[in-house]
Order: sequence, then structure tokens, then C-alpha cells
Amino acid sequence: MENALFTANNIWMMLCIALVFLMHLGFSLLEIGLTRQKNTINILFKNFFIICSGLVLYYIVGFNIMYPGDFNGWFSLSEVGLHLPDNGLTADYADAGYTYWTDFLFQGMFAATAATIVSGAVAERIKIGAFMVFSIIYVGFIYPISGSWLWGGGFLSDFGFYDFAGSTLVHSVGGWAALMAVVFLGPRIGKFKGKKIFAIPGHNIPLAASGVFLLWFGWFGFNGGSVLSADPASTSIVLVTTSLAAASGGLGACISSFLVFKNFDVTMFMNGILGGLVGITAGADLMSPLESIAIGLIAGLIIILAVKLMDIIRIDDPVGAIPVHLCCGIWGTLAVGLFGNMAGTEQFFIQLVSILTIGGFCCFSASIILWPIKKFMGLRVSSKHEVEGLDIHEHGMDAYADFGLNQH
Amino acid sequence: MENALFTANNIWMMLCIALVFLMHLGFSLLEIGLTRQKNTINILFKNFFIICSGLVLYYIVGFNIMYPGDFNGWFSLSEVGLHLPDNGLTADYADAGYTYWTDFLFQGMFAATAATIVSGAVAERIKIGAFMVFSIIYVGFIYPISGSWLWGGGFLSDFGFYDFAGSTLVHSVGGWAALMAVVFLGPRIGKFKGKKIFAIPGHNIPLAASGVFLLWFGWFGFNGGSVLSADPASTSIVLVTTSLAAASGGLGACISSFLVFKNFDVTMFMNGILGGLVGITAGADLMSPLESIAIGLIAGLIIILAVKLMDIIRIDDPVGAIPVHLCCGIWGTLAVGLFGNMAGTEQFFIQLVSILTIGGFCCFSASIILWPIKKFMGLRVSSKHEVEGLDIHEHGMDAYADFGLNQH
Amino acid sequence: MENALFTANNIWMMLCIALVFLMHLGFSLLEIGLTRQKNTINILFKNFFIICSGLVLYYIVGFNIMYPGDFNGWFSLSEVGLHLPDNGLTADYADAGYTYWTDFLFQGMFAATAATIVSGAVAERIKIGAFMVFSIIYVGFIYPISGSWLWGGGFLSDFGFYDFAGSTLVHSVGGWAALMAVVFLGPRIGKFKGKKIFAIPGHNIPLAASGVFLLWFGWFGFNGGSVLSADPASTSIVLVTTSLAAASGGLGACISSFLVFKNFDVTMFMNGILGGLVGITAGADLMSPLESIAIGLIAGLIIILAVKLMDIIRIDDPVGAIPVHLCCGIWGTLAVGLFGNMAGTEQFFIQLVSILTIGGFCCFSASIILWPIKKFMGLRVSSKHEVEGLDIHEHGMDAYADFGLNQH
Repeated sequence: MENALFTANNIWMMLCIALVFLMHLGFSLLEIGLTRQKNTINILFKNFFIICSGLVLYYIVGFNIMYPGDFNGWFSLSEVGLHLPDNGLTADYADAGYTYWTDFLFQGMFAATAATIVSGAVAERIKIGAFMVFSIIYVGFIYPISGSWLWGGGFLSDFGFYDFAGSTLVHSVGGWAALMAVVFLGPRIGKFKGKKIFAIPGHNIPLAASGVFLLWFGWFGFNGGSVLSADPASTSIVLVTTSLAAASGGLGACISSFLVFKNFDVTMFMNGILGGLVGITAGADLMSPLESIAIGLIAGLIIILAVKLMDIIRIDDPVGAIPVHLCCGIWGTLAVGLFGNMAGTEQFFIQLVSILTIGGFCCFSASIILWPIKKFMGLRVSSKHEVEGLDIHEHGMDAYADFGLNQH
Repeated sequence: MENALFTANNIWMMLCIALVFLMHLGFSLLEIGLTRQKNTINILFKNFFIICSGLVLYYIVGFNIMYPGDFNGWFSLSEVGLHLPDNGLTADYADAGYTYWTDFLFQGMFAATAATIVSGAVAERIKIGAFMVFSIIYVGFIYPISGSWLWGGGFLSDFGFYDFAGSTLVHSVGGWAALMAVVFLGPRIGKFKGKKIFAIPGHNIPLAASGVFLLWFGWFGFNGGSVLSADPASTSIVLVTTSLAAASGGLGACISSFLVFKNFDVTMFMNGILGGLVGITAGADLMSPLESIAIGLIAGLIIILAVKLMDIIRIDDPVGAIPVHLCCGIWGTLAVGLFGNMAGTEQFFIQLVSILTIGGFCCFSASIILWPIKKFMGLRVSSKHEVEGLDIHEHGMDAYADFGLNQH
Repeated sequence: MENALFTANNIWMMLCIALVFLMHLGFSLLEIGLTRQKNTINILFKNFFIICSGLVLYYIVGFNIMYPGDFNGWFSLSEVGLHLPDNGLTADYADAGYTYWTDFLFQGMFAATAATIVSGAVAERIKIGAFMVFSIIYVGFIYPISGSWLWGGGFLSDFGFYDFAGSTLVHSVGGWAALMAVVFLGPRIGKFKGKKIFAIPGHNIPLAASGVFLLWFGWFGFNGGSVLSADPASTSIVLVTTSLAAASGGLGACISSFLVFKNFDVTMFMNGILGGLVGITAGADLMSPLESIAIGLIAGLIIILAVKLMDIIRIDDPVGAIPVHLCCGIWGTLAVGLFGNMAGTEQFFIQLVSILTIGGFCCFSASIILWPIKKFMGLRVSSKHEVEGLDIHEHGMDAYADFGLNQH
């Protein structure tokens, strides 16, 4: 490939690395904002741990599990750590249009996302040590194994599964684990009493909203970088479909929420935007602008229904991680069979079977990890610690030392 | 155009899209920070609505009103929605150096800005439904119509008007509407009592300051992308003039404020930076570094004077949107006739007449929209709701559930 | 150089400009978050002043002191202000792969960093006027003079000193001044009483954590842009070493802190990440991924030890600026002699001698500036102002007007 074009492609991928990195700030702020102040330090600690351990683990094993080259299609670990190509440019990477180092770091920024999704769902009651152990195993092994099945050229790739930037491979992989983890953990004290459901309001909505803006900003890199080149036509249509799906996701949730509940609920608006983003992720390169609006509007509606459903089945997910990442992740993956260039009955069933395959693997793996943690370490903090807050008990400090605060 | 250069141009424009998008977070945080906590949810809701509806409206009609191709110079709507060029690359877009999709999204991110400016001025007292209706019409129709007159090749373009990135076409278009809206609305309860003026302090200055930093950051894309290519000489001088005007705008306001009021007022500093940015926007590509410093310093002084003037004429603009976007927008547009490559008496009068033309159109249009809203929907919330806060009454939730708060 | 490649290089450098600019928001939020609410406005004011005055000063004298062309190796001021090359492209800049304007602005964004580091260390007790005077002289003259010795081609360049992106030239230059300033100032009231040490908790940890994420984000530009081209192999390995050092810096501090203090301290985690970033900065282009992890882990450990040491020697540095920027800056500079492509005994001693040379110059210069300020202006606010807060006394406003607050 020509030097200038190679350089341009590599710049685009490096920009996308930075954008996806910033999503970790977005997730942190969203999770903080939608929970109670007494668990803020704990959330920040978890999120710093996720990105730091995630990158180091991806260096040690993750990248080589996920992209092992020729392999049996199920599992391989080609080597440990990164090798040192001449100038970071092996021959095949020169063809790809960016360097080996860029590839590693872009994929590494994705890897930690799965654990971040779990973090939101289990917030305000999980033991910090238990979360760290779970996160290490899930990010270090489970995420790259399931990723290798499609993106590493494994059996789902041969099967014809399509998931552009990871509605399933990133968001649902996180979402299934989140679902299993909250089943193992149970709801927060005070969320469900008999037949009654009590809303536990988030303590800092401006931070949560900032998180949503930053996530949308980061998604330009998440989806735009998944083109894996700076090809002008492909990257720019992906930014358009991503933005229109986000916008219509927000509007869809806002309208549904207004029609059902007769109010202007900003939390639903925010989760609608995120739902639209997750929904377009599997097919962002396949859709026309109009189709991306349709996918977004439906994602917005799904958010409203899924949030209701969580209450009905007594699942306590403080930040709405399961509606956003699991439900809209499934929706987006199915939408590849319904809209856009690849739509068709056969493709729809390939998508469905692949969703179930990944879902089964994730639920099974998450249980296998969570069960011994619960048995031997304990998964949940004591009632006293939960009521008084994880910050003071697990971390020995307050997030807002100078502010008058209400305990609840 | 050569493939690598086309790719590089398109990367720059996509980066600028992301940066301009993030300005919506900047505006949100600025508006939140400079108002009272009881209206925080309302502000976030408005801002999410603006960006989401703005993008979808720009898709449906805005883009085709603003860039209709050959037209009568006053108004045209060439089609509805986007057409689907081969690979997003029509012949004329290949000449332009970026794709049709990139063009749409860059311009779409600009469109919503006008409504955001209004949002700040009308904060803490406008009905959410009334704001939504106003915003839809203003962003969907008025902004692209006036935009078509210059950037779409309309009659102001033939007239010789120059407005590089929108001191008038974006900032004053928002500023005039903000001025009309606050005239229709009246001041907040408690702002003016008899001859006395009461400052109503903002509740979260760190968020407001973060907004200013993010707006400056986003302005690299706002002005840098308005070059409409990645031409190295043009884009890089634009970043220099933009940054120096922002810096000297802040210093100008800081020094003026210190000389007049003998204090170090951070709000004036912040609005000075924004004033410098708005002021350089019309001629960021025409000015030398020294001229950009002069434009910034004067913009900073204008901020101080305009804030005083607002009090004298009993205009209540909680965030200073009118001084920043209208007054400095006018200043920046006139500065094209006073400094830089195009300076001259004739150009000065072309600028002045164009400012008045756009101003007349915006004030008239805004009134035509606001009058029936006021008559049939009601523009302003009840006194009870205003005093107790829009969050609890229009949205049914609090922004800071865990914090002890003072009502005022 | 080919047009498309020149354009691509220039895009990368402009992106890095924007990223380094955003570090100023990161520093502001970190400093706010780790101090008390009563000094928030003061911190914001200082940080706006630093970036605004820093850019204008760098325009007037800084750039020409730092990059004077051929000079005696110690000091030169080639001209005042920027000259106006044809299209911003002089012949030698065309070779460099980016424009004169880009070069100025990238270097200008760096310049203000040194003062920001000082700002954190002297927080909560310095007079605003005294800080402004110090900052102007230090940023306008001292930083560019010491910078010229290596990056401007001065005597340390001839000596063989290597400091890729400024572990010493930026971070330690700020860190030494911070050390001198806190020695001149003394500790905050209530920090040390007799033999006892009292922790003064920060008031907004979510903002501090956001600052850390933004600093890491900005560091992609700080180190990535220091390649001074978009060369794919060089830039992408730099992003990898930077990220792995940040991640392992965080983990190193987290593990050390847990082993020593048996808690999960998020402040240590955050400073560990920053320590890792500062530590890799001198040799980000020389290290393998594994070496960058080693450098980060050791930086994390140094943070823990240095924070302890500050207490022992009775230095009060509210945000940990000295451990992060001075101690890890020294470590990173020495690491060039211990790890990576240039490692060797001779290089180690060249690094050591250069550190001492720069350190001596900075301590001497800072003292020369601070002494007359202390003598004639006063360096420190009165006890009454310090106890009641700088916001109300130096700026006449509150940061959080609607919140119930605890004074301490």
C-alpha cells in the first residue's frame, strides 16, 4: 500500500483508539450518576481497575486468544505477549492499512468494555475483590474466546454470522454476564419490598448525562474504527448511521415514555440514545440513513419495555445495563437480518443461532466463574456495608467530603 | 483527486464532526453550571432533545434547504431525506475532498447549535413543550433558510458577504432568537425588583468551566472543519487564530473586569473566552495571529459591556448567551471589514448590511413562531413551578437526590 | 515531501494539539477534586489564566526563545511574535512534515503545562496575584529557556541528553518549581500539628477521576504528537507504550497501596496512572511493551513511597503534584538509561547529569522569582482568608451556591 494512504489509515485508527478509550470515562460517569453517592469511590475504583487490568491482560493473553491466526475455530493461544515485528509493520499488516501496534491497542480498548457493562449492573452491592477476580477472568479469557469465533476467523465466521462492531460480541457478551451476575447477587436492599417496587434515584444526573454524551462521542471511534481503515465512503456512512440511530433512539424512548408515562423522563432519553447506539453497532456499515433511524426508534421502544420487564421479573439493574447492552444488542444483531444490504430469512436465522450460541457460552462461563467466587470469597457485601455504603467500608473514603449528604 | 489526499481530507472532516458534536456537551454543562440546581434535569432534557431532533430534522429537510444546489437565492427544498450516491461519492464531492455523508453530518452538527444558544437564554422559566416546538421549527427551517443565503450560494453570497464559520450564520442566528425569546418570556422571578438587580448565582461552576474547556476544544473542529478540507496551511492558521482569540478574549474580559469591578471574576473570564471564540469565527482564515489577538481582546471587553447593558435594559439572560453569541457574533462579522485580508470600507458595509438582513429575518421569524406558541400553548411555566423548579414539575425527578440543597 | 503525506502528518499534529489542549481541563478537574470546595473558583481562575496567558506569552516570546534556530546553546531570542511565512509553509517546515503554525500551537499547548503543575501544589493558600506573576515569568521565560537547551538544539542536545516528550523538560520543570513554591509557602493550616499529620480530603472525587481519564486521553497527543510526524510505526508504538505504562502505573500503585495499607485507595490508583504516564514520557519511543509495563509498575511504587516521603519531610502538596511530576519525571528520565534502545551506563549518567542541570536551573530560577514576590507582594493569603476560603475572599463568589456545604 502507498505510504501516504497507509499513514492516513493509521491516523484514523489511532484517533479511534483515543475515542474508544474515552468511553471508559463515559461509562464511569453514567454509572456514578445513576447510583447513590455512598458508592461513588467504589465505582471509580472498579472502572480504573477494568481499564488498567484489561489492557495489561489483553497484552499478556487476550490479543493472542482473539486473533490467533489459523486455528481450530474454537480456541487457540498462539503466544504470550506481543512479538516485535520490524518497525511494527509485518507484511500482512501493511496490507491491512495500519500497524500491528495500532491493531493491538484498538482491540485492547474494546476488550475492557465487557467488564464495564457488568460493573454497572452489579453496582452498589458487589464485593470489590470478587468483582476484580470476575473481571480478570472474563476480560482476559471469555471475551477474547467468543471474539475469536467471529472476528478471529473461527466457526461463527464460517457460519456466516455478521456483527460489524459488536452488538453481540461486545455489548451482549457484557450484557449476558451482567444478567448472570445480578441473578447470583440479588437486588439491592430496598429495591423490592413484597409486591412494591421502589425507585432508587441516581445522585448526580449531570454526570450521568455527560457520560452519555461521551459515549456517543466515543462511539464515533467504536463504529468508525471498526471499518479497520479510513476508507472514505465506508467510514463516513458509518458515522451517519451511528449518529442517526443514536438520535432516533433517544427520540424513540422519549416519545414512548411520554405516551406511556406522560412525563419527560431524561433517564429514559439517555438510555434510549445508548440503546440506539448499541442497536446500530452490528450493522452500522450495512444500513441506509433511513434504516438506521428505524433501528434507533425501535431500540428506543425496546429500552422502555425492557426497563419495565426488569421490574416485573425482579431484576435490579441500577443503570439499565441489561436493557441497553443485552436487549438492544440482541435487537441490533437481529436487525442485520431485517434491514440493509444483508437482510434475508436465512441471514436472520444465522444471526439468531449465533446470538444463542454466544449467549449460552457467556451465561455458562459467567456462572462457572461466579459460583466459586460466591462459595469461597463471597460475592456480596454485608447488609451493614451495603446500607452504609461501599465507599466508607471497602475504600475508607468519601467521594464528596465537603457536601451535606442524605443517606438512603 | 488523489485517493490518499481524499482520504486524509475526509479524516480531518470526520474528526471535526466529532469535535463539533462534543460542543453540545459543552453547551449543556455551561448552561447547567450557570443556573440553579432545581432546573438541571430540564436543561439536560432540552439539550438531548436539541441534538437528537436537530440531526433527524437536518436529515429530513434541513440539509436540502441549506444546500439546494442551483436555486433562486431565497428558498428551495430540493428533495426530502438523503439520496444514495454510489459509495457516498458523487463526482462533485470527489472534487470537494470529502464524501456526501461527511458533508451532511458536519453541517448537521452545526444546525442544532442555534437552538442550544436559545436554550441558555430562556433557561429556568420556559415550558418544555413550548421549547420543543420552537426548537423544531427554528432548527428545521429558519437556520437552514438563512444559511442557504450565504453558504448555499444564495443572494448574500452574490452580495459579497463573508462569514467563514458562522459568527453570524450560526451564533447570531441563535443569538437573535434568544433575544426575541427572552423578550417574549420576561425575566426570571426575583431577578429585577424595582430598580434593584439581583444576581442569581449558578450552582455548579466546575461544570460550567468544563463546558468552556469543551467548547474551546470543539471549536478546533467548528473553525478547523470550516476550511472544508485538510489543507495544511489553511487549517493550521485557523487553529492558531482560534486559540489566540480565545486566550485573548479571556484575558480581555479578565482585565476589563478587574479594572472596572476590582475582582477576579471567573464567570467573566469564561464568557470572555467564548466571546473571543465567537468573535474570530467569521474571519478565522483571514487574520494574522496579531489581528486575532486584537479581535479577542475587544471581544472580551464587549462581553463586560454587554453583560452590563443587559442589566440596564432589563434583559434576563441567565448564561450570557446574548453577549457571547449575538454581540460578539456581530463584532466578529464586522471585524472582517476591519482586520485581515478582506478589510476595507466596502466590505465593512457589506458585512453590516448582511448582519442587519439576517438579524431582521431571524427576529421576524422567531416572533412569528413564538407568538402563537405563547397564545395557544403558553410559553412560560406557572410562578409556582418556576419557584419550586422545573425538574420536579415538568420532569418529576431531581438532579442531585443525595445532596442537601438550598432552595432559592 | 508529497502533498498527501504532508497533509496526513499535519492532521495528526493538529489532532495532538487538541488533545494536549484538553489536558488543561484534566489538570483543572484533578486539582479541584482533590482540594476543598471553598477554593474551587480560585483553582478554575488560575487554570484559565494559565492557558490563556501561556498561549499569548508563547506567541510573544516563548516560541522564539525555545526554538531560536542556530544559537549559542544557552539563550537566544530570535524575534518577537510570529513571522508570516508564505502559506505557513517555509521550506524547512515542508521537510518537517507539518506547518509553522502547527509547530507553534503544538509547542504552545505544552508550555502552559509547567505552570499547571505548580498550580496544584500551591493550591488553597497562594495569593492569586502572586500566582499570576509567577506563572507569567515561569511560562514565558524559564520553561522555554530550559526547553531550548535540548529541544531547541542547545548544549544538552550536544551532550547527548534524551527526553522524548518531556519527563524532565515539561514535568520536572513544573515539579521543581512546585517544590520550591511549597517550600516558600509552607503547608496549609491544619495539615501538620506537632507530630501529627492530618489528611485533608478532596471534595469531589468524580471530578478528580474525570481529570485523570482526560489526562490519559490527552497524553495520546502529548506523547503521540512528540513523534513530530504521523509515521505509522513510531506513533503507534508510542501509543502502546504510553497506555501500558499508564495501566501498569495504576496497578503498581494499587497493589503497593493494598500491600502496605490494606485498602483499595482510589487516589493512589489515580496518581499511579499519572505517575506511569509521566514515567514513560521520556522514552515512550524507545521501549518495548514489556519494558513500558516495567516502567509503569515502578512508577506506581514510586508514587506510594513519594507520597509517604512528602509527609515525613513535612511538604504539603494537596494534589500529589511533586510525587507525580517531579519524582516520576526523574524516574522516567533515568529509565532511558536503564531500559530500551538507548540503555547503557554512559547514557544513564548523561541522563542523571542533565536532570541535575535542569533541576538546579529550575530551583534557582523559581527562587529568584518567588523571593521578591514574597517580599514585596506577599505570597500567601491571610489565615482568615485561608480558613474561610479563597473563593469568597479573592473572587467574591461560591462554586456551589445551591448546595449545603461543610466548612473545614
